[in-house]
Amino acid sequence: MSYSVHFLPDDVRVTVEEGDNLLDTAANAGVYIHAFCGGEGVCGKCKVKIEQGEVSATQATQLKSDEIEQGFRLACQSKVVSDLVVQIPETIRKDGKKLKRKPKTTRSISARSLDDLIGVWDVDPPVEKRFFALNPPTIEDNLSDLQRLTRAISKGCPECERPSYDHPELLQELPFTMRRANWEVTAIMLRGKRVEEPDRIIAVESGDTEDALYGLAVDIGTTTVCGVLINLNTGEVIAEASEYNGQIQYGEDVISRIIYSQRPGGLQALKERVIHTINNVIKTVCKKVSIVHDDISYIMAAGNTTMTHLLLGLNPKFVREAPYTPVCNEYPVARAALMGISAHPSVRLFLYPSVASYVGGDITAGVHACQMHKSPELTLFIDIGTNGEIVVGNQEWMICAACSAGPAFEGGGIKHGMRATSGAIEKFHIEPETLDPMIITINHAKPQGICGSGLISIVAELLEVGVIDQQGKFNRQLEHPRIREGYDSYEYVLAWAKDSAVDEDIVITEIDLDNLMRAKGAMYAGYQTLLESVSMTFNDLDRVILAGNFGNYIDLEQAICIGLLPDIDRDKFYYLGNASLLGAQISLTDHKRFLERTVVSKLMTNMELSENPNFMNHYMAALFLPHTDMSMFPTVQEKLPESSAK
Amino acid sequence: MSYSVHFLPDDVRVTVEEGDNLLDTAANAGVYIHAFCGGEGVCGKCKVKIEQGEVSATQATQLKSDEIEQGFRLACQSKVVSDLVVQIPETIRKDGKKLKRKPKTTRSISARSLDDLIGVWDVDPPVEKRFFALNPPTIEDNLSDLQRLTRAISKGCPECERPSYDHPELLQELPFTMRRANWEVTAIMLRGKRVEEPDRIIAVESGDTEDALYGLAVDIGTTTVCGVLINLNTGEVIAEASEYNGQIQYGEDVISRIIYSQRPGGLQALKERVIHTINNVIKTVCKKVSIVHDDISYIMAAGNTTMTHLLLGLNPKFVREAPYTPVCNEYPVARAALMGISAHPSVRLFLYPSVASYVGGDITAGVHACQMHKSPELTLFIDIGTNGEIVVGNQEWMICAACSAGPAFEGGGIKHGMRATSGAIEKFHIEPETLDPMIITINHAKPQGICGSGLISIVAELLEVGVIDQQGKFNRQLEHPRIREGYDSYEYVLAWAKDSAVDEDIVITEIDLDNLMRAKGAMYAGYQTLLESVSMTFNDLDRVILAGNFGNYIDLEQAICIGLLPDIDRDKFYYLGNASLLGAQISLTDHKRFLERTVVSKLMTNMELSENPNFMNHYMAALFLPHTDMSMFPTVQEKLPESSAK
Repeated sequence: MSYSVHFLPDDVRVTVEEGDNLLDTAANAGVYIHAFCGGEGVCGKCKVKIEQGEVSATQATQLKSDEIEQGFRLACQSKVVSDLVVQIPETIRKDGKKLKRKPKTTRSISARSLDDLIGVWDVDPPVEKRFFALNPPTIEDNLSDLQRLTRAISKGCPECERPSYDHPELLQELPFTMRRANWEVTAIMLRGKRVEEPDRIIAVESGDTEDALYGLAVDIGTTTVCGVLINLNTGEVIAEASEYNGQIQYGEDVISRIIYSQRPGGLQALKERVIHTINNVIKTVCKKVSIVHDDISYIMAAGNTTMTHLLLGLNPKFVREAPYTPVCNEYPVARAALMGISAHPSVRLFLYPSVASYVGGDITAGVHACQMHKSPELTLFIDIGTNGEIVVGNQEWMICAACSAGPAFEGGGIKHGMRATSGAIEKFHIEPETLDPMIITINHAKPQGICGSGLISIVAELLEVGVIDQQGKFNRQLEHPRIREGYDSYEYVLAWAKDSAVDEDIVITEIDLDNLMRAKGAMYAGYQTLLESVSMTFNDLDRVILAGNFGNYIDLEQAICIGLLPDIDRDKFYYLGNASLLGAQISLTDHKRFLERTVVSKLMTNMELSENPNFMNHYMAALFLPHTDMSMFPTVQEKLPESSAK
Repeated sequence: MSYSVHFLPDDVRVTVEEGDNLLDTAANAGVYIHAFCGGEGVCGKCKVKIEQGEVSATQATQLKSDEIEQGFRLACQSKVVSDLVVQIPETIRKDGKKLKRKPKTTRSISARSLDDLIGVWDVDPPVEKRFFALNPPTIEDNLSDLQRLTRAISKGCPECERPSYDHPELLQELPFTMRRANWEVTAIMLRGKRVEEPDRIIAVESGDTEDALYGLAVDIGTTTVCGVLINLNTGEVIAEASEYNGQIQYGEDVISRIIYSQRPGGLQALKERVIHTINNVIKTVCKKVSIVHDDISYIMAAGNTTMTHLLLGLNPKFVREAPYTPVCNEYPVARAALMGISAHPSVRLFLYPSVASYVGGDITAGVHACQMHKSPELTLFIDIGTNGEIVVGNQEWMICAACSAGPAFEGGGIKHGMRATSGAIEKFHIEPETLDPMIITINHAKPQGICGSGLISIVAELLEVGVIDQQGKFNRQLEHPRIREGYDSYEYVLAWAKDSAVDEDIVITEIDLDNLMRAKGAMYAGYQTLLESVSMTFNDLDRVILAGNFGNYIDLEQAICIGLLPDIDRDKFYYLGNASLLGAQISLTDHKRFLERTVVSKLMTNMELSENPNFMNHYMAALFLPHTDMSMFPTVQEKLPESSAK
């Protein structure tokens, strides 16, 4: 159920879902409320007055009983359960005057969801079950057991090629399964990898088991492995699970994993870790719906090139060394159980093909999911991360590249950087006059550090109010307790030690700003280089698709403000979320889409940016907030304080 | 080099090859010479006088020096090295008169070799090697290693489907092989199982190894495993080896093997034994030509249904139980090394498809070898053995059946029966007047027993001279030291204890004759039943093809005489030898023939004789020598002594 929330005195109205957190609602609406503790309810700053309507709030010791009677609540502890009118209390400045609130000219906005554009896909999976009540053999009809089954399978289609069959293990059990089941069996059939290929019988079960047909889609991320269990008879996702990739103990990013893989036993250890993680995901999803892993008939996975190599035990040594050649880009279909995956011996593990060493199967799956390869619209597909991947193109051509953005977006190289887990500052607003922060943390836990989306948010806000300038330097003129010369460089205190979970002030430093600028500069230079290579500009783009979980948490306006995204019509932006997982899920469910996989990867041409001089030039020009060429960022130009402009 | 040998006084002239044994030559020509010791040179009976020409003879203590000077030699110790005139000495009877020699009216004859009819096959094997000097990768051309190779492979044919590739193990080594070889590599390609299937890369080797391409053809017999190593660049057989099937320790025939396979661990033990045997064959052929087993790129095998099941670890339980269903008739292509076969991990083991539980891949391979499925001539294909297999048909249809002949042809159920090994009596003639024998043993060793071909020979000769009658009973009227009432029944002494290697008289008994009649009766009834089922008779046959090693040793005239083969124009008979091995060899060498394999098996329709009433009637009628219906054996009728006729 939706409710309207009306913030006063800013006069901002938004529509939210029942149960949404009121502090989050304000933050998303660009309505500033003091919030120092991330939303945990301890700082007591986010006091608001509910003028109309009701909230469901946990009791807060920070409020006096008369305040509660007057309708005051802590926004961070309140959930919307009706239409609301919410009054933000006046801030009394040191000089005793009321602070005049300046509503933001631009609202925090999100990109649109791509759901409509992806369209629907058929529930017509590449694996199917077919039940047969066979005629028992007689002396006049004593075909082999396998022929008895294949004859029944091809009965409807006498001119069809007979289905082929599988590994000897299937045949070892077949005569006993058939007789035990009194000749009533269900065949699990894998449809051809190519259209012309006949179906393959991969397993035979006693009795009629057609109702139980499950598949698993897996995204093998460098950090996280996510799986969704799908009922292939309905296409529904019936369980989800995710888990940190167990390889993390051997290194945070792909490069450190590759280095580890070159140690004696390293490759095997990495392979075992990720398989262990996948097995945990399988265990979790199976438990959620009370099935056993043997009930899963089919696994479709996508991962970057290094992750896929490591999973298959292929040595990624030359992925890292120039000229960056993977062993292969199309991966052999693997028998999951033989690899050590908890799966029925018949189960195949299909892997999305890669395009190059740093444009992997996860990107192919993402492009496949959003059907870029079938759309006439010129699309820029972006997956932001340590290795940012960029694809530009449409149904006729696609060019792609990876740019090494560095780890800033994942919290690396940032003094208080952290992954996007509980306690990470993910949203930030600043009161333009008091320069006090409104910080929102993941799970509203006490702040522990800054995640990637928080970093973008912080830098954009500091830039907009002039705390930092376009070169990423602090305005040394400002006198404010939160702005100070720290141990390394100038810094802004996001959370005081008393409000934080880490017993020290959480700050953002000029060094952090430098690292962020390099990261966003690399991405932006990547877009430019790819577009330029096909003689196009940002103005030619019909769509910009943000893939990756990270993409979903980016405040679009703030990302444009710092120059991470191009300053074009906001309606062209779409969120795709975990596109890799989505691609795997679609392939798992729809055989027609499944067969497109390789077509997609073959349409994508890789471009190496690392030694491209144009890229380097664009990169240097992008080491500025948002960019040295402000004509590319007209809306940002408008809202930046004049003092900050060059 | 060929020489003419003229035997006197019989006035028989034959042409033989240089080095042929003179006793064998006489036996084959139907020229009787006393020979009691099988040809070992100890009995000294086979004394002949070389009237013209030279023989190469080992010195014989049985000859006096004046005899040697006069030109006497032991035939069994003499090799033909020039044109010869050979005088057989007169035999002096007890009454002092010279025995008048009666030259045989019908000569011992062999069927024709099928070589001409099989025709030639192409040297165009299903596996090939292709060398490539690849361009090393650069930053502008940094395809994956596999793509670099497949691009080179499909260079000559840009519109061709790219070859697929193989197991992950291949990919694990690929980047290192390529770099070590400085990008000069040889790909081993397996051509499609179907015409439309793209080639598959199964292995990649450093440098140019195109010259070394070997394949192994294997016949997996119940008794013997035979292998031939073929240079696939030339099609030549470069080494052969055979070895007793190691499963023999668990039973002589397929039924006892199936029974053993049902014991705990039995199936696995049988699988291991035959694989051990195959490995010995591989070791032997490789040693002969100084290659290692990893140099073999491809294995093509054929065996009966039970042997194939056991090799693959498929349970043959229901092969034995009515209604006799095998697990499958087309076998999965197996990775030889994974099964435990000494082979490179890339090597595939292809197995000839079966038709039914008792018409196996060996028969399919034989039919394939002789190209019955492409000939308009109506052909009867026979493989005589414990399980005799019969195929009738031509290019349009084929009907086949197995008949359980019992083990007589393999020495089973015969008092002094033995396998066709050293010391087995394989040829037999009898002097019609003295009733003394001319026995020839395998390797001319001292007689140890009787093998299948010897048994046929003995029975035919005893019948022809009236020692036995058409019911297989001894003529009790004859008084002769060799004919006597033995422990079990009447018997004829083939070799006295002093001339034998077993320290007892080697005899043939009436019980043996009974067993032989059942065996040959089952075969003959099988031919009749199959022909009748398609409303044909023996007169409609254009060809009779004798397959199996056994077939090559059968004296055609003698086999017809006892009713094992039909009494039709001798020119219609052909020998094919080990047809199963030949089929495997042809498939291994010629991809077009390779692709025909399954076509052949699908053209063959199996008929179950075991419960067929027509078969039973024919069988009962055939329990006679040669048959109760003598109108079917006109040439035998003519030569049988009147006393023997019913």
